[in-house]
Amino acid sequence: MKALLIVAHGSRRKQSNAEVVNMAEQITQSNSVYHIVHAGFLEIAAPLIPDGIQQCIDEGATSIVVLPYFLNSGRHVVDDIPRIVNLVSDNFPEIDIKIAPHLGSSPLMTELLMSCANRVQ
Amino acid sequence: MKALLIVAHGSRRKQSNAEVVNMAEQITQSNSVYHIVHAGFLEIAAPLIPDGIQQCIDEGATSIVVLPYFLNSGRHVVDDIPRIVNLVSDNFPEIDIKIAPHLGSSPLMTELLMSCANRVQ
Repeated sequence: MKALLIVAHGSRRKQSNAEVVNMAEQITQSNSVYHIVHAGFLEIAAPLIPDGIQQCIDEGATSIVVLPYFLNSGRHVVDDIPRIVNLVSDNFPEIDIKIAPHLGSSPLMTELLMSCANRVQ
Repeated sequence: MKALLIVAHGSRRKQSNAEVVNMAEQITQSNSVYHIVHAGFLEIAAPLIPDGIQQCIDEGATSIVVLPYFLNSGRHVVDDIPRIVNLVSDNFPEIDIKIAPHLGSSPLMTELLMSCANRVQ
């Protein structure tokens, strides 16, 4: 069973974290690839990445894609998330855990950006 | 003449800022709506928002769309960017300056997210 863990930075502002959780719920309902979709956070908010991975496994995931919900390839994307995910992976050798490219690297980003600009009122 | 100013937070990491500038250059070349496209930053990096708007005007912009390159609707999106843009707008009553919805609010975001997840190797 495939799981998707959307990992955002985590904010002191609860609404920012809730937006990521809402997006995970929206994707749960609209996608046909991942049976399990959750939000996780690098810091500040819960669940942290290890707990998010654990939650996916508890719900029956056999493979997990961790998706960094970040616009830029900063140290969180390049160092922190891979380090944490690798540490957790060592505890679950039977689970296939992979990290997807971060959001900002998508070739669709310019299209998304233009669609936002065109929504100006 | 229409201009698009893509406003990111600004990072101490030069590469993160360069990614936004590169995206602006990419959009300059690929879009047919905005003759002028620049990156600007809320803080830390240059050009700051007022300088980015000034640059667009210096190049002949008569209308400017400011696009917040942010995933969440935090205080930067809700308070800081509108406050700064409104202050600058007061100095240029003849220029039509508007703020587009922030990137994370796009209805295409779930699609973008799924396309990133599917790029996992």
